[in-house]
Amino acid sequence: MTYNTFGRVFRFTTWGESHGPALGVVIDGCPPGILLTADEIQTALDKRKPGTSKFVTQRKEPDAVKVLSGVFEDDTTDGPRTTGAPISLMIDNVDQRSKDYADIRDKYRPGHADFTYDAKYGFRDYRGGGRSSARETAARVAAGVVAEKALAHVLGSAPVIRACLVQMGSHKIDRARFDWMQVSKNPFWCPDPVAAKEWETHLETARKSGSSMGAVVEVVASGIPAGLGAPVYGKLDQDLASAAMSINAVKGVEIGAGFEAAELSGEENADEIRIKNDAPHFLSNRAGGVLGGISTGQDIVLRFAVKPTSSILAPRKTITRAGEETEISTKGRHDPCVGIRAVPVGAAMMALVLADHALMHRAQCG
Amino acid sequence: MTYNTFGRVFRFTTWGESHGPALGVVIDGCPPGILLTADEIQTALDKRKPGTSKFVTQRKEPDAVKVLSGVFEDDTTDGPRTTGAPISLMIDNVDQRSKDYADIRDKYRPGHADFTYDAKYGFRDYRGGGRSSARETAARVAAGVVAEKALAHVLGSAPVIRACLVQMGSHKIDRARFDWMQVSKNPFWCPDPVAAKEWETHLETARKSGSSMGAVVEVVASGIPAGLGAPVYGKLDQDLASAAMSINAVKGVEIGAGFEAAELSGEENADEIRIKNDAPHFLSNRAGGVLGGISTGQDIVLRFAVKPTSSILAPRKTITRAGEETEISTKGRHDPCVGIRAVPVGAAMMALVLADHALMHRAQCG
Amino acid sequence: MTYNTFGRVFRFTTWGESHGPALGVVIDGCPPGILLTADEIQTALDKRKPGTSKFVTQRKEPDAVKVLSGVFEDDTTDGPRTTGAPISLMIDNVDQRSKDYADIRDKYRPGHADFTYDAKYGFRDYRGGGRSSARETAARVAAGVVAEKALAHVLGSAPVIRACLVQMGSHKIDRARFDWMQVSKNPFWCPDPVAAKEWETHLETARKSGSSMGAVVEVVASGIPAGLGAPVYGKLDQDLASAAMSINAVKGVEIGAGFEAAELSGEENADEIRIKNDAPHFLSNRAGGVLGGISTGQDIVLRFAVKPTSSILAPRKTITRAGEETEISTKGRHDPCVGIRAVPVGAAMMALVLADHALMHRAQCG
Amino acid sequence: MTYNTFGRVFRFTTWGESHGPALGVVIDGCPPGILLTADEIQTALDKRKPGTSKFVTQRKEPDAVKVLSGVFEDDTTDGPRTTGAPISLMIDNVDQRSKDYADIRDKYRPGHADFTYDAKYGFRDYRGGGRSSARETAARVAAGVVAEKALAHVLGSAPVIRACLVQMGSHKIDRARFDWMQVSKNPFWCPDPVAAKEWETHLETARKSGSSMGAVVEVVASGIPAGLGAPVYGKLDQDLASAAMSINAVKGVEIGAGFEAAELSGEENADEIRIKNDAPHFLSNRAGGVLGGISTGQDIVLRFAVKPTSSILAPRKTITRAGEETEISTKGRHDPCVGIRAVPVGAAMMALVLADHALMHRAQCG
Repeated sequence: MTYNTFGRVFRFTTWGESHGPALGVVIDGCPPGILLTADEIQTALDKRKPGTSKFVTQRKEPDAVKVLSGVFEDDTTDGPRTTGAPISLMIDNVDQRSKDYADIRDKYRPGHADFTYDAKYGFRDYRGGGRSSARETAARVAAGVVAEKALAHVLGSAPVIRACLVQMGSHKIDRARFDWMQVSKNPFWCPDPVAAKEWETHLETARKSGSSMGAVVEVVASGIPAGLGAPVYGKLDQDLASAAMSINAVKGVEIGAGFEAAELSGEENADEIRIKNDAPHFLSNRAGGVLGGISTGQDIVLRFAVKPTSSILAPRKTITRAGEETEISTKGRHDPCVGIRAVPVGAAMMALVLADHALMHRAQCG
Repeated sequence: MTYNTFGRVFRFTTWGESHGPALGVVIDGCPPGILLTADEIQTALDKRKPGTSKFVTQRKEPDAVKVLSGVFEDDTTDGPRTTGAPISLMIDNVDQRSKDYADIRDKYRPGHADFTYDAKYGFRDYRGGGRSSARETAARVAAGVVAEKALAHVLGSAPVIRACLVQMGSHKIDRARFDWMQVSKNPFWCPDPVAAKEWETHLETARKSGSSMGAVVEVVASGIPAGLGAPVYGKLDQDLASAAMSINAVKGVEIGAGFEAAELSGEENADEIRIKNDAPHFLSNRAGGVLGGISTGQDIVLRFAVKPTSSILAPRKTITRAGEETEISTKGRHDPCVGIRAVPVGAAMMALVLADHALMHRAQCG
Repeated sequence: MTYNTFGRVFRFTTWGESHGPALGVVIDGCPPGILLTADEIQTALDKRKPGTSKFVTQRKEPDAVKVLSGVFEDDTTDGPRTTGAPISLMIDNVDQRSKDYADIRDKYRPGHADFTYDAKYGFRDYRGGGRSSARETAARVAAGVVAEKALAHVLGSAPVIRACLVQMGSHKIDRARFDWMQVSKNPFWCPDPVAAKEWETHLETARKSGSSMGAVVEVVASGIPAGLGAPVYGKLDQDLASAAMSINAVKGVEIGAGFEAAELSGEENADEIRIKNDAPHFLSNRAGGVLGGISTGQDIVLRFAVKPTSSILAPRKTITRAGEETEISTKGRHDPCVGIRAVPVGAAMMALVLADHALMHRAQCG
Repeated sequence: MTYNTFGRVFRFTTWGESHGPALGVVIDGCPPGILLTADEIQTALDKRKPGTSKFVTQRKEPDAVKVLSGVFEDDTTDGPRTTGAPISLMIDNVDQRSKDYADIRDKYRPGHADFTYDAKYGFRDYRGGGRSSARETAARVAAGVVAEKALAHVLGSAPVIRACLVQMGSHKIDRARFDWMQVSKNPFWCPDPVAAKEWETHLETARKSGSSMGAVVEVVASGIPAGLGAPVYGKLDQDLASAAMSINAVKGVEIGAGFEAAELSGEENADEIRIKNDAPHFLSNRAGGVLGGISTGQDIVLRFAVKPTSSILAPRKTITRAGEETEISTKGRHDPCVGIRAVPVGAAMMALVLADHALMHRAQCG
């Protein structure tokens, strides 16, 4: 495992810069015989793509995916099916506008990776953040579709993986109003329709003033059997934490009760177990579906905090590559709350981690 | 990377069960020529070992380490030095009392990995939690000493890696009183002497009633140069999240501002940069020392939430292996707050991640 | 490391089928700041591409490479330089003629992977061998260029990596006539001009009769310092053996004296050492430049045997997918001696292994 | 995968030096529920251990194995069974005689890794070759037992893995007399009783004169189903080549016809296929049981060449660490033909590679 690869036996490698000719992902280890069409991947990509509302970047990217390898179809098959060979997916970059970024060539944008890339590599593609751009997450979403299908294939039934925004800025949803059906009905993937309305006002204010807001994303996987994951460094929650923290701008990760667990007593925290329908049934899910790094059969619950977009209008103190003090104000087409577009990315990462663990489990335990 | 190995080029593999004859770790990739004595490792292990106060388990384990390979000494050397070969460290288990655990053979302890191990493997060493026991973390602490020395060797100067408890239950420290010098002066590794006093009361109450408390650990690495880490799946903060979440009972992880970052505006969150002493100087550290997955040169700040010990006296609803409903009350020598002993483990994991990244950086960037 | 990835820290992943839209490679871990143009890669690809003489397949593939990521150029740079991000290279498939392969859909070609792919995956892209086609080696040659530049960058001086054919069928070169300058002067990469002439006759006879010939390739790397490689499972010769055996149709691998070493006495085999120009100097090189898995500073000498092309005109006994006995005669545009086109592939694999080891060495030993 | 680990999902890491306190191996990824006793491992180790005849080193090592983790037994089980946790095996070093090696401290032994270790690490454990000693192969043999059991467990039936010596010096066996039953009846693991007699004379002559001989080992695995292995860099034969070349003193590797394949025509080389007992049946096995990197269901046939022991009595030209020319004559208890003791090691590596591939296959293909 090096720098741009994730996973053990269901493994993917992404490549591409924000303003290069294209970006893509190569997925290796996918089981053979799975029906996989470009349309399915495209549908998922369309959820993440720029320009879908005024609350996300206005960059115009069709994010049209090409499937370059790993599937095969002839007149005897019912469509393209995976062959077990690596699946290469590519998305051309279209709306690059490199000139927009000429001013960030010499100044490090606070909160961005400009300074650290220069510190590490000594040379960087500064256009749109280059490799550090969140455009890379399009490749994750595309790979996530393959993962979700592989996971259903291996489990023998399709799990349900859903994600939503449960907090924008300091404004949390009301859990009593939580409704997955609401998620696709507002531009924020918010499961609480009342909160969604309020967030609209908050974010519009931030957007108009050239400011930005953070958010918290929640991802839930239902229908995952007990037994996925492994001690001690192949823990399911460990990999979920790794996956979530690898998403741009994420600064915190929780499983189940998360940080609240620290405030509970042992009696409050440990989920009691009963039998229901001849199967183990937990009376609560503070564990978030993982005990000892292995799934319990309950919902897997992952949450992660996304910092506010660092590209803001207000002038900020910074330095130049040459080491001189200056200021920078980031104009351009930025997401006022990057957390929104991180929602499908979070779901994709959940699928990718679970697919890897499902295959790893099958390797060791049959 | 499979189930019991962590790291890329500075890599370690742990083995051993709570009640087996021994536990250990094999560290591979350590640079040659580093002075490494068993005494140094022992000193670190003594911080984590059981029985040091009434607030930790009363199991009596000397946790005496043996260095079995990877170092060499003759009459021309000033002590044992690493040779570049794998370093094998072993700790005998002494105080096992297997009979204590006979009652957990057939009942799944809520909040423990008993059920999930059975669900996964169909067969388990139930004694003391077997492989899922926190005794495994002794191996991490031992490996952490090697990592810290390797890191200093590669960086050319010794970073300072420190850890403490910043919250017990719902009781947080007062940041205004934060003092690293206090950490070793109380049984909680607490940097706030006032809070330490209060915690003593809280934890004593919990302990006496057979209950338990959660906690939050903070780990800070100072003296780490800018440039360690890598996009996109080799992010420094990603690996820190993975490392922290791999520790027993951890349910949440934060870097820098963490979940609070979600509540900040872009202006508040992004750390501004100035020049100080001819070097980049950040005016704040909400990033926790990592931007775009790469270190900024500031303190690396990691926090993680530890759930309350699940082994408590109060009877809890559970089921048996045979699928019958029952209750269990966990007697025995348990930590009333496992977060305390997670402090040196957190510091060790920080060192292990940083050593791996320092070597990886050297591989790619010289 | 899974199925389509090679290397540890200088790592590449290939993708693509013989008759899919394209094939490619993603290279991760390349040091930043290295000048890398598409032209350089193209020059290497042209050596391997089909249709260059009547002794190789007449498939018409321009094998034009596109560099899609990982390099950056602006008006301040002297050309495109690597950034440390993954380098994605793609080659479109042009001359696919899928109809040529309709007859191999149901019959397993002896000596090919048709049967084994079906046995493993149950479903395969049969066109031109799909993923098992030697077209995949174009991706290796492209990656090899990057590896060679990375290696020179890390070593501080450019090693010389050369490959040639030392045997065709049972006809070996005369070592007394070995001359690297001859290699590019005949269509066989043969270092012995007399042998090259004779091989022309032999291969023409085989080609005309629809038969094929095997070959032995030798790859030599000069200018590699002592110290690359590692015990015990990161041996330089081990990785070279792995690399060579991963090339299509390779059935044997040797380092230095190879199988002949088995026939020597200890006195004859072990290379004696003297001092020359203030440096260790070996009086012979039966070790092939590797002792204990680590380079000695002498030439690294790798040889591998390539079996004769299995696609031949003579009818051969085989079975159908349905399990019926039948015969097959393979028409089409095949290499009468695939060993010829394996020569640049062998050189590329040497460069890829050495680059990985040079980076690994730098990681551990600075 | 770093320096001392082999395998993907059935993975082992060895540690230990020739004259350290012990050596060992940690095996990770083994399926749970497999009966595994120390006695079984001991039986295998006894085949490789020193001092069994005058034709191997007279070092007296009991090579007694301890199983430290990964198995569990209580009064309800029929013996110790694997739990899925890492299996740690340790062998104490007993007969070390460090003083024997005092003279090699400053002189590099030709044909040994002394010079290259120093070139790489700058510091080494010179006693008995330290980490480069063939004593490390005891750990492989121990791990091989676990692999063989895991393989049988996963396949549902026990394959037969056998190894023998087919050549000593220039003296090959007569294939017409090949008989596996003979292998255990002579001190050379020779399947040809006539050759075994002759070798006795040859080796006795070499031994008495302080010289040494090379050898060729053949390993055959029967009962392996079609479908194990994977393109393109997870080839079964590639991993076998890697495994074989990782064994001390190995300089060449062949699969099936090996180097002879280069001399065959396409007609002669490609194995024809018929149906026999309702299953595919190959009329020959020049492929050695692998096509396109995937097993065909035929015997897997691996051969490797072992160079003659470099530790010989005759004085050899060499240099000192300080760079001065000198001579060295290696006294001590050395194997006159290390190829003999490489036989069980070859069988173990075959089992280890196959177990890994069986698990990998199950991961991807169920």
